[in-house]
Amino acid sequence: MYIPTYDDVLAARERIRPYIHQTPVLTSEYLNELTGAELFFKCENFQKAGAFKVRGACNAVFGLSAEQAGNGVATHSSGNHALSLSYAAGRRGIKAWVVMPHTAPDAKKAAVRSYDGEISECGPSMAQREAMLKELVSRTGADFVHPYNDHRVIAGQATCSLELHEEIGALDTVVAPIGGGGMISGTCLTMSNISPDTKIYAAEPKNADDAYRSFRAGTIIEDDAPQTVADGLKVSLRPLTWHFVSRYVADVLLVTEQEIIDAMYLTWQRMKIVIEPSSSVALATIMKNQELFAGKRVGVIVTGGNVDLKNLPWINN
Amino acid sequence: MYIPTYDDVLAARERIRPYIHQTPVLTSEYLNELTGAELFFKCENFQKAGAFKVRGACNAVFGLSAEQAGNGVATHSSGNHALSLSYAAGRRGIKAWVVMPHTAPDAKKAAVRSYDGEISECGPSMAQREAMLKELVSRTGADFVHPYNDHRVIAGQATCSLELHEEIGALDTVVAPIGGGGMISGTCLTMSNISPDTKIYAAEPKNADDAYRSFRAGTIIEDDAPQTVADGLKVSLRPLTWHFVSRYVADVLLVTEQEIIDAMYLTWQRMKIVIEPSSSVALATIMKNQELFAGKRVGVIVTGGNVDLKNLPWINN
Repeated sequence: MYIPTYDDVLAARERIRPYIHQTPVLTSEYLNELTGAELFFKCENFQKAGAFKVRGACNAVFGLSAEQAGNGVATHSSGNHALSLSYAAGRRGIKAWVVMPHTAPDAKKAAVRSYDGEISECGPSMAQREAMLKELVSRTGADFVHPYNDHRVIAGQATCSLELHEEIGALDTVVAPIGGGGMISGTCLTMSNISPDTKIYAAEPKNADDAYRSFRAGTIIEDDAPQTVADGLKVSLRPLTWHFVSRYVADVLLVTEQEIIDAMYLTWQRMKIVIEPSSSVALATIMKNQELFAGKRVGVIVTGGNVDLKNLPWINN
Repeated sequence: MYIPTYDDVLAARERIRPYIHQTPVLTSEYLNELTGAELFFKCENFQKAGAFKVRGACNAVFGLSAEQAGNGVATHSSGNHALSLSYAAGRRGIKAWVVMPHTAPDAKKAAVRSYDGEISECGPSMAQREAMLKELVSRTGADFVHPYNDHRVIAGQATCSLELHEEIGALDTVVAPIGGGGMISGTCLTMSNISPDTKIYAAEPKNADDAYRSFRAGTIIEDDAPQTVADGLKVSLRPLTWHFVSRYVADVLLVTEQEIIDAMYLTWQRMKIVIEPSSSVALATIMKNQELFAGKRVGVIVTGGNVDLKNLPWINN
């Protein structure tokens, strides 16, 4: 298992620079007063394809040799990674295959197709997804880009906190949501190198608390089909992300579904930005644990803004 | 009737600088491709109190002598001007009275109170509002700050397009929504001085087309209680705004309710920003009249982001 280094992060930054946005850092006096902290929101909801995932996807796609690239890339995902890999492949002019369960919402399929990703439908179980992916990779020779358990992806995600650090200087704390752990691993990779005193907190839905339980058990515990409004955070840690989480994360903090929804609503209402439920988990965590964050300079990774605007969790909920 | 000058705009800029945000200008490759134009969105939805109105309100409030200020300020409005005047008065430490019909939604009353505005409730007709305001002003000596038919307010709103021009250089065209005409008058005032070749288009809901009809008739025609989702644009022109509209506006362009809602949805979905229906009228106009805007550098005034997130026009509509 290759562990990405800080040099990989710097290389990733140069590699992906033409294809991504350097996203803005926003502040809110209202939320500073509410939490007692000084919050810096790194707005990956304004990122290409609507989420930070495009950083890792671009690093993987543009790091391929011409020969490898000719066979395209493949993944299984129904979320932001699928969009991002399709976008990155499109920019390089190569093919992206996305294995999705045929039960995935039409809106998600349409989004992938809008970025020219080619969908291979399979049965709904994870075993069926993996079997379909394996068959597809062996048939096409496509390069499999895992959504997070991939050193190229983690080095790409790590460029986000590098920008944040450069934009606003040293932070006492960074809070990022945790699902599979790609963003948090990238944050650990960067901060442990350039700002080792910065504490990194992982924010997780109580309804999908596998990282919380893993962190306390000292070994990966997988969740079995968790249900949470933060649909980007349902997946479990893998060995490469566990490497970073187990070594560098100060703590994993849990929030309820209602706390996630409330933080999302407050962000839309006060900051006038569209963020997805998974992103709101970070602010919800800060609001819930003020004793940890008050008086501190806190970076908040706003991971994405891909939301079904016709189905908002505070309406009919 | 005093007509504000460009010197008034420059003075307003210095006067209000400590109390407002210099808002960012955002772009969207997607919307550029869709419209064929190069669009620059001046994001007053990120402004203090959530809308451009705070510019004019601050200019009026901070331009008062200490003696005048001691008596406070007053207005009749149930929208963004009420919030903005309350905010400005709060920053100066003086009183703001807001005359609102007792039928106004509780959410609007709560918003005004959250900025420490004091509400005087009256009957629902415009005559009742004006009578209550008159009584209040004569009793308290408060300075009446009209939402738009006030030279101080127009000079304040004019700072928005001044920033836009400084931020991104000369524009072929600026599009702004038109209700009472405060923002469009300020835009005319600035542009006619610093960039007289820039064409100014006013965007109006077809359901509240008094400015459109006035422009064609050559005299102010008032609307009688128009119904539109763009609730900031229901009011009619007054002599001071008519002065600017009749002299400097290239045309008034109309859009339907569905076109407004579609443009609002698209902005939220693609730009990940929360904008109010009144703001969406500008983009809707550009989408509808591509022959006027394609190939041009177009400034778009995003007037505000104060929306009832629990009652969105694309849900249950």
